[in-house]
Amino acid sequence: MKKTQGGLSDVVAGETKICKVSSDDNILAYRGYAIADLVQYASMDEVAFLLIEGELPTANQLQAWQEERIKLQVMPKQLQLWVESFPKYAHPMDVLRSACSLLGMLEPEREPTLSEGKKIAKRLFAVLPTVLTYWYQYHYINHAVKMSTETSFAGHFLEALFGKSVAPSFVEMLNVSCILYAEHEFNASTFAARVTCATNSDFYSAICSAIGALKGNLHGGANEAAMHLFAQMSSPEQARSAVQQMLVNKEKIMGIGHRVYQNGDPRSPIMQKWAQQLAEQTGNTNLYAIATSIAAVVLEEKGLYPNVDFYSAVTYHCAGIPTALFTPIFVIARVAGWSAHILEQRSNNRLIRPQAEYIGPSIQKYIPIASRK
Amino acid sequence: MKKTQGGLSDVVAGETKICKVSSDDNILAYRGYAIADLVQYASMDEVAFLLIEGELPTANQLQAWQEERIKLQVMPKQLQLWVESFPKYAHPMDVLRSACSLLGMLEPEREPTLSEGKKIAKRLFAVLPTVLTYWYQYHYINHAVKMSTETSFAGHFLEALFGKSVAPSFVEMLNVSCILYAEHEFNASTFAARVTCATNSDFYSAICSAIGALKGNLHGGANEAAMHLFAQMSSPEQARSAVQQMLVNKEKIMGIGHRVYQNGDPRSPIMQKWAQQLAEQTGNTNLYAIATSIAAVVLEEKGLYPNVDFYSAVTYHCAGIPTALFTPIFVIARVAGWSAHILEQRSNNRLIRPQAEYIGPSIQKYIPIASRK
Repeated sequence: MKKTQGGLSDVVAGETKICKVSSDDNILAYRGYAIADLVQYASMDEVAFLLIEGELPTANQLQAWQEERIKLQVMPKQLQLWVESFPKYAHPMDVLRSACSLLGMLEPEREPTLSEGKKIAKRLFAVLPTVLTYWYQYHYINHAVKMSTETSFAGHFLEALFGKSVAPSFVEMLNVSCILYAEHEFNASTFAARVTCATNSDFYSAICSAIGALKGNLHGGANEAAMHLFAQMSSPEQARSAVQQMLVNKEKIMGIGHRVYQNGDPRSPIMQKWAQQLAEQTGNTNLYAIATSIAAVVLEEKGLYPNVDFYSAVTYHCAGIPTALFTPIFVIARVAGWSAHILEQRSNNRLIRPQAEYIGPSIQKYIPIASRK
Repeated sequence: MKKTQGGLSDVVAGETKICKVSSDDNILAYRGYAIADLVQYASMDEVAFLLIEGELPTANQLQAWQEERIKLQVMPKQLQLWVESFPKYAHPMDVLRSACSLLGMLEPEREPTLSEGKKIAKRLFAVLPTVLTYWYQYHYINHAVKMSTETSFAGHFLEALFGKSVAPSFVEMLNVSCILYAEHEFNASTFAARVTCATNSDFYSAICSAIGALKGNLHGGANEAAMHLFAQMSSPEQARSAVQQMLVNKEKIMGIGHRVYQNGDPRSPIMQKWAQQLAEQTGNTNLYAIATSIAAVVLEEKGLYPNVDFYSAVTYHCAGIPTALFTPIFVIARVAGWSAHILEQRSNNRLIRPQAEYIGPSIQKYIPIASRK
């Protein structure tokens, strides 16, 4: 038996062909393609195809994929009724987790075959944005939900969210952000998906586990947590001293530091550029200055760098996205990576079942209830 | 970095005070109490209290727990409406996973405190049996669902399931079975729950992950898979030769073998006694003989022993429980153990995030879409 450090941080839990994460040289690549290239040249549809199908699509393949995605965006009528019945006060991550679970009930996976798995992967990639934007419009804008006719993944999402078209720079930013959020090796939510599907459970169950795991603020929830922190600050100077005090109190600064990247998250500078650009474009330069001030003080005091979630928070806020939807956007992108990992786990499956070290009481005699004190 | 065998089988992923599993001497004990004592003397309410609160209850504590459980059994009206809207063809595990997710939306966890966690643990322990039995009666017996006034956990469940009282031996058997299913260290569903809550996600998310993981036939789904196998056989002799052929074809016999117990699952003989007793009582001796015949041939050929799920299948069938509800009953019992593990994980939390060995393509140049073949 191998004893391990807490949180399996020193454990290689398996092999993957999907994602290379190298903390030494700050490399992140999907199926061998560096994220720097993908965010520069590719669309989110292309990256989802790459992750799920294993190779970059040809022009014809991409067109067919996109056409199918547009068809699959439409919710089944029963799911739409359920989404309308979800309360307005619901946590949007609970909305996505529940909708995924309910869709798994309506359109169950019959057999865990590769083709059935890919079908569900595409279905979820297409329909989860609809679930989120429909629920948001229905409760926060108008019951008469406006559909979107935008064809790109990112453009469709933003138009469906707001019920109207948005600035092209916002669409471009969201495309980049979704690509950066699409995949990240054996992160906690992906690992939860693999643990779940390794029992031979169904595709939807694995995605539900992943959504649930992503919700926590030590994972996807960090982008929302970072925004809540920024919102408490009035100026870069005040932010600096407030965060210094937080560090003295040993409080965690969410969105900073990363289990794998000790020398900085390669996704972070890309999002920082977008944060700066959109902050200038939308008059949010104080917010951007607060964020950079917080990043600087944590680097000075703790040697920790911001991760992808930190500047994503600034960027999303500048694009007018409500804070409660930050982590759900992470979901609609990461579902591509989760899907790839579920298919990979199934291709060479073994039950994921570690052991525990028992440190509880030794075997004791059962005490009849009348004799207990 | 520690390289590991597949499925983390050689990895100690953490410490626990909840459950001692010892494969060498076939010991299974919850909080220091051997299961042999618990099934002989305790009720499922008592064991759930033991797991969640950490100690056996006094008579007063047990009474208060049971009274609260009876109150918490009632679904909120909105959840009842949703359960009625679930299709009749739904997989009952999808019913439980969805209901858990939806309840987490209706009654969200405000803060991940110990008291809030225990409150939700009790709520789920009380209400999930109602979800399952209500959905079953509504769709398979009558829309006018009959509630149960039985006060014991097992008696309540069976009366609520069938809409009428059942033989006392069935209630006694289900109490034992729930106790045996209540907890089992770092099994896959519990581990999925711990991975999920370790991101600081909420209690319901962790339970949803666990339900999803339990569904697979390498885990909780094994009791249903075993029953489906038995149902294909006509006699012990025919079962013997059919299973011999399956072993030649390298097919897995579900419900036999266990990741941890190499020399037999200590829960199995307890369920086997009940299987034999109820088979005789209900005229299912051929089914019991088929099961023992299959167990014998797999032991001879492979040296593998039946696990807890194998004879549970026979026993549940004899009690008239539909096969599709076998794994859901595992859920309503194991929710006690999952809850204890979520509380324990939170008491000393660290993100569970292993690493992967990358075996995919090396970094390659991005090919413009027009140049792809």
